[in-house]
Amino acid sequence: MSEHVLFTWLDLIGTFAFAISGAVAAHQKKLDLFGIITLSYVTACGGGIMRDICIGALPPAGLSDWRYLGLSVVAAGTVIGANQLVQKLAHPVLLFDAVGLGFFAVFGAHKTLAYGHGIGAAIILGVISAVGGGALRDLLLNRTPVILQKEIYASAALIAAAFQAGGETLGWSLRWLPWTAIALCFAIRYLSLRFHLNHPRFADDD
Amino acid sequence: MSEHVLFTWLDLIGTFAFAISGAVAAHQKKLDLFGIITLSYVTACGGGIMRDICIGALPPAGLSDWRYLGLSVVAAGTVIGANQLVQKLAHPVLLFDAVGLGFFAVFGAHKTLAYGHGIGAAIILGVISAVGGGALRDLLLNRTPVILQKEIYASAALIAAAFQAGGETLGWSLRWLPWTAIALCFAIRYLSLRFHLNHPRFADDD
Amino acid sequence: MSEHVLFTWLDLIGTFAFAISGAVAAHQKKLDLFGIITLSYVTACGGGIMRDICIGALPPAGLSDWRYLGLSVVAAGTVIGANQLVQKLAHPVLLFDAVGLGFFAVFGAHKTLAYGHGIGAAIILGVISAVGGGALRDLLLNRTPVILQKEIYASAALIAAAFQAGGETLGWSLRWLPWTAIALCFAIRYLSLRFHLNHPRFADDD
Repeated sequence: MSEHVLFTWLDLIGTFAFAISGAVAAHQKKLDLFGIITLSYVTACGGGIMRDICIGALPPAGLSDWRYLGLSVVAAGTVIGANQLVQKLAHPVLLFDAVGLGFFAVFGAHKTLAYGHGIGAAIILGVISAVGGGALRDLLLNRTPVILQKEIYASAALIAAAFQAGGETLGWSLRWLPWTAIALCFAIRYLSLRFHLNHPRFADDD
Repeated sequence: MSEHVLFTWLDLIGTFAFAISGAVAAHQKKLDLFGIITLSYVTACGGGIMRDICIGALPPAGLSDWRYLGLSVVAAGTVIGANQLVQKLAHPVLLFDAVGLGFFAVFGAHKTLAYGHGIGAAIILGVISAVGGGALRDLLLNRTPVILQKEIYASAALIAAAFQAGGETLGWSLRWLPWTAIALCFAIRYLSLRFHLNHPRFADDD
Repeated sequence: MSEHVLFTWLDLIGTFAFAISGAVAAHQKKLDLFGIITLSYVTACGGGIMRDICIGALPPAGLSDWRYLGLSVVAAGTVIGANQLVQKLAHPVLLFDAVGLGFFAVFGAHKTLAYGHGIGAAIILGVISAVGGGALRDLLLNRTPVILQKEIYASAALIAAAFQAGGETLGWSLRWLPWTAIALCFAIRYLSLRFHLNHPRFADDD
């Protein structure tokens, strides 16, 4: 698999996972058909559009490439059609969100490097790619943004983006580097949800 | 009327309509003078600034061309001065918003094509031009964004943007194309408000 | 002190002041370590990133230059470590916010001119640099954005940005121009807070 094909797949899988998480959240809030498609699209493409604007990849891929909108419509249709199946999952929004998080952190870091920017920008823009769509989803639905909730979230994306950007700069093999970074991110996020792990807090110390 | 003059007018009329809708919303929330001007400007220029950033038209026209800020100040003054007149309209925010929606969907699609981008980007950026300012207005005022409300809204902009982008690509005459698209958008939006038409919903089916 | 060094210092001082204000606000809301760093960074860099995107300075300095993230981490650590000291200040969020406001209005206007844009864009982007980060901070914390609160706020930034952009265009000496603009902004903001000065309101007149 060529490098280009590999990263295209990482991007599309992440897009679909976030699109599902946005559609489920919109469905739970009883939005109408258009609202579900809109939330699905904003969640899936919001972070990538922020990234593309910041690296100067204009117009952003989420706007110019029909596959992103297409995936959002398919995700919305899937959630509406297979709702009983989706409901059986414990926390479908968090689950699909955790999958998208790793794929987008890795792809965002890679695309920033590919546009000739430095490793620092690659790490931060990997995190923004990964958390931007979910933050927009929560702002539009008037929920507390997931990025500010108590569980470890953006830090999982940060580790994946740093691992990918660092490894790619050091020339590590792309055969296993992105998958390891994605697995690392998912594992951290899953364990923090499963065992309610949190960052240290300080407000009560004083 | 040359093409350039035509589209400049579409942009300025849309700007003024959105500026009025933002000023009325701010006035209803009892904001002060500066708050009314700010809301007027953000509603009028927010969507266009998002569009210009995405197509690489920097700095965005809403920031570099004084006419946009000027129109926002005039709209704020009009709403403050002629408040009793404006109050007599049934739903002034929704009414002026519906006018701006069509003008911006058409102008946004046209400007995206004029910057050399494809028809897909033109349609999506037409919608973003049209709905972006109103979404910012509602986020700042802590209201449910109009784009997620039950009535048909962004889909009216989508039809106008697709009609304009498609027609322009096919070389249809600009003498009637933009006006037809704008009338179509306003008619769809007006009828959906008048008869409480909504998109299908699914949450109760399951 | 060369012009470049002068404006770098204005930018870094403004960044640190906003980072402190964001960290204090996050600490008051009892966010965890990562939430405090995130809020600190978003408040400090949000406005500058909006400005850089609009003037085409890509990738935005807040993303590509590690000093900004570093200052945010230091500010978060300071707020956590010296919390009892910070608590003794009457309104630390408003105080540090008022300091950052003037520095960013002046630096934002200067950077826009330095990128070859006009005086109109320089004034508006000075204001956006100054108020953007605080608006994001308040949106994420679900507070009423400071820009829409009753006291004179964005207008203080507007005066500083207009003073700097106008003076720089007229060739006034940089030895005293930026400091005067910053002092003007801080004085206006401080007096409006101290004496509860507000813009005129209209809602009750009708």
